[in-house]
Amino acid sequence: MTLTGNMLIGQQAITGHREAIRAINPATDLPLEPAYLGGSGEHVEQACTLAWTAFDRYRETSLATRADFLETIAIEIEALGDELIDRAVAETGLPRARIQGERGRTCQQLRTFARTVRAGEWLDVRVDSALPERQPLPRADLRQRQVALGPVAVFGASNFPLAFSVAGGDTASALAAGCPVVVKAHSAHPGTSELVGQAVARAVKKSALPEGVFSLLFGSGREVGIALVSDPRIKAVGFTGSRSGGMALIKAAQSRPEPIPVYAEMSSINPVLLFPAALASRGEALAQGFVASLTQGAGQFCTNPGLVIAHQGPALDAFIKATAALVQRSPAQTMLTPGIFSAYENGVGSLVEHPHAQTLAVGLQGETPNQCQAHLFVTQAGDFLTNAALQAEMFGAASLIVQCASDDEIRKVTEHLEGQLTATLHLDDADMPSARALLPVLERKSGRLLVNGWPTGVEVCDAMVHGGPFPATSDARTTSVGTAAIQRFLRPVCYQDFPDSLLPAALRHGNPLQLRRLLDGQREA
Amino acid sequence: MTLTGNMLIGQQAITGHREAIRAINPATDLPLEPAYLGGSGEHVEQACTLAWTAFDRYRETSLATRADFLETIAIEIEALGDELIDRAVAETGLPRARIQGERGRTCQQLRTFARTVRAGEWLDVRVDSALPERQPLPRADLRQRQVALGPVAVFGASNFPLAFSVAGGDTASALAAGCPVVVKAHSAHPGTSELVGQAVARAVKKSALPEGVFSLLFGSGREVGIALVSDPRIKAVGFTGSRSGGMALIKAAQSRPEPIPVYAEMSSINPVLLFPAALASRGEALAQGFVASLTQGAGQFCTNPGLVIAHQGPALDAFIKATAALVQRSPAQTMLTPGIFSAYENGVGSLVEHPHAQTLAVGLQGETPNQCQAHLFVTQAGDFLTNAALQAEMFGAASLIVQCASDDEIRKVTEHLEGQLTATLHLDDADMPSARALLPVLERKSGRLLVNGWPTGVEVCDAMVHGGPFPATSDARTTSVGTAAIQRFLRPVCYQDFPDSLLPAALRHGNPLQLRRLLDGQREA
Repeated sequence: MTLTGNMLIGQQAITGHREAIRAINPATDLPLEPAYLGGSGEHVEQACTLAWTAFDRYRETSLATRADFLETIAIEIEALGDELIDRAVAETGLPRARIQGERGRTCQQLRTFARTVRAGEWLDVRVDSALPERQPLPRADLRQRQVALGPVAVFGASNFPLAFSVAGGDTASALAAGCPVVVKAHSAHPGTSELVGQAVARAVKKSALPEGVFSLLFGSGREVGIALVSDPRIKAVGFTGSRSGGMALIKAAQSRPEPIPVYAEMSSINPVLLFPAALASRGEALAQGFVASLTQGAGQFCTNPGLVIAHQGPALDAFIKATAALVQRSPAQTMLTPGIFSAYENGVGSLVEHPHAQTLAVGLQGETPNQCQAHLFVTQAGDFLTNAALQAEMFGAASLIVQCASDDEIRKVTEHLEGQLTATLHLDDADMPSARALLPVLERKSGRLLVNGWPTGVEVCDAMVHGGPFPATSDARTTSVGTAAIQRFLRPVCYQDFPDSLLPAALRHGNPLQLRRLLDGQREA
Repeated sequence: MTLTGNMLIGQQAITGHREAIRAINPATDLPLEPAYLGGSGEHVEQACTLAWTAFDRYRETSLATRADFLETIAIEIEALGDELIDRAVAETGLPRARIQGERGRTCQQLRTFARTVRAGEWLDVRVDSALPERQPLPRADLRQRQVALGPVAVFGASNFPLAFSVAGGDTASALAAGCPVVVKAHSAHPGTSELVGQAVARAVKKSALPEGVFSLLFGSGREVGIALVSDPRIKAVGFTGSRSGGMALIKAAQSRPEPIPVYAEMSSINPVLLFPAALASRGEALAQGFVASLTQGAGQFCTNPGLVIAHQGPALDAFIKATAALVQRSPAQTMLTPGIFSAYENGVGSLVEHPHAQTLAVGLQGETPNQCQAHLFVTQAGDFLTNAALQAEMFGAASLIVQCASDDEIRKVTEHLEGQLTATLHLDDADMPSARALLPVLERKSGRLLVNGWPTGVEVCDAMVHGGPFPATSDARTTSVGTAAIQRFLRPVCYQDFPDSLLPAALRHGNPLQLRRLLDGQREA
């Protein structure tokens, strides 16, 4: 396998003609070969034409064909071997073990969606049989299934070069739903993207699917990204990234003659509530768990615990002291890109200078480029409530502790939060009543609630919610991780009085797919 | 029962202080008492405050409590007796039997949602059990359920004063989901709205629910409507009405600091495709069925068949001749409001004058105010493809026949359509191959596909889809009729490692609600 610097438009390798994108090894600040010449609107047009051509056929492939295809992608990614790992490490500065783990997660995710596709519950088949004798009016035969929305634009994320990128969760769930995918690669890891893109394209070919099922573009967000979201053949968008980036795509999607849904996962500070009894009984352990979660992967997780809320007093003082000591000893870690490092420096810089935030601890200084020093800040509830800037996400290993004088202040601070991906409660038995009283607020604010755990680490499973109210995401009704993510790319269609031979297989009278239908109000066994 | 001219903010009758809204009997053009003084932003504020206060308690009521509440609303509406029927007839000009039928449908809809709430499938409970021994990392206990989005703003529609209004499908499905509702009444039927609003408020009281679960406001769309959609405590919007009205609400919802979903059902011309063998074998019967569907209720249905697509030739000529004769004999019918009549007149007027549309037939002239004369037009495929105005909805009993020279032209016309609520195919066995070839296009364009039926008449059941791609609705992923409509007002929340005592009942280990959960990847029996 050799990296070519080309885009993939269906099965064709295409060279761009805009400014070159070059990965930079953040650990050395040195550029990596090859250069990826950016694509333009012309390439968006080609990729969308192919995707549109492929759509009607791909969305009606059998469940088995589509599941096999997802598994073939996983096999092809695994077959990339160390070349993929080496390149992803070089492009991201992430530790090798982390990238290996992420590859495993990415392939498991594809296989999980294969299982979901085969089970067919996502078709949500509903049948209301004809009642020709009903008075005063007969009832027609009505049958509903879910169909694919259309070609989907996926934007790779910087912080998961495999699991939230070219063949990540958005791509896997869109392909599972029957939607062709056009990926706009993240410019920070073009080589990783090309390798994975080639693996997907090989799987398309081996599965004898129309080539337009998958394309991979490089280029600027402003040109290629906006053109992609604006193309009339694109029917939904998946994005994980910054609030400003997500909002730009949402605006473009809403400005189309036909607006389309954007699933943007954007900004979350993931509050952690430390309840008094837990804090008193195991403050030291909490400090260790917290700092481990905070500094993991240089804090570059959407679910990084960026906010701690607790009652002021000796127990919190002890926690703060222990946490500060751990943060001070925490090694600097290479961040994903020079741009992310610089944004982190700006973010913590604003807080260092903020009159209502006090710097408690700073981690060890780095010795190589782009290294994140962990930061710990503290503020008072009253200041948090009146300074919106204290609620801004700092992407990296930085967190703010909000000291509250009363249960009432804790409630006010919690109510004041914007929408979140997660909210975490650390509690002992004696804290149950206080926790129970806050739960309704936390449910309104967050997609996932955790007890006595840490928010980093997002399991790919049926019950996961990686989502939440705005601005955590642009659409709280969904999740971008876990099998429920397939529902983002579906819409219902009802078939009235269709002859059996015209019905799709899922809806035929003999139920050839053996689905558990909702038949005349009853769920089939 | 006496009409008071008041709004209902929770259990309080409140008099507005803006310009008076007065229903007009469209059959006489005479105003009806009482006057309804319009509300203002102040009333929106009060209603939303109450709704917000009620939300946390209402959304956690038991399934039985909520189902009983929906059934109590139905009982209270039925108890209004003839006063409701008389008033609705006077305010809409609709025939008495139609209003009686609509009352039955409205109450059945409430009872259907009660059944849906009790069954609990909408909670979509997913459990992934803890795997403490898993390598390399243990898995937490993860449990997902659906929770209510928050208070919902519902805008009553003009054309269904009961079934799509104060206690119509949007309200029923939002209440079923656990969302308090603030209704902005349609100004065309304030008395009907007040009566139904009082019935709902009585049901709230009898069910011992917090009063903020339901409020009813009168007032201008520009002031009260926009204020309601902009209130930070409103978390979703249901609307049925015009494209311009829906787009204004969508714009307001997207401009909020926290954007919210708008379910707007707006504009559809509901194409009917007449295939050659069907047209040849039963053109006369098709003409009768078509004109009956077209003129039913003065054509004031979202699913009115406003477009016919067929091969030109002798069979179509015969159909056109028969249809024109029926239209010419069709009696004028009173429209819902002077405004709707005037818009209809303008719409058919533009088509009468359009150089590429030919007027085939005009129905009988009316003798009382606001009477709709049916209109039938014809055009050629080439003209339809190049004149966007020919695709505009004319709300009323008007339809346009598009003559096509070939299968290819039929396909092009179909591909050229905007999103639709319905698409209808009339076919015989010999038409199957042509119909099958067009199905993928129609699936992409429509929420409901019918064979050998007529699109008017929307069954309230599990399998119904009353929805479709833009501009038929603003969100093709949903339906506004049928039990799946509850999903519009829900979002998933995941609970990680929660002690059983903190979990909501739906997620507890003992499964006390006896739900069919998705447990470790398997559906429970």
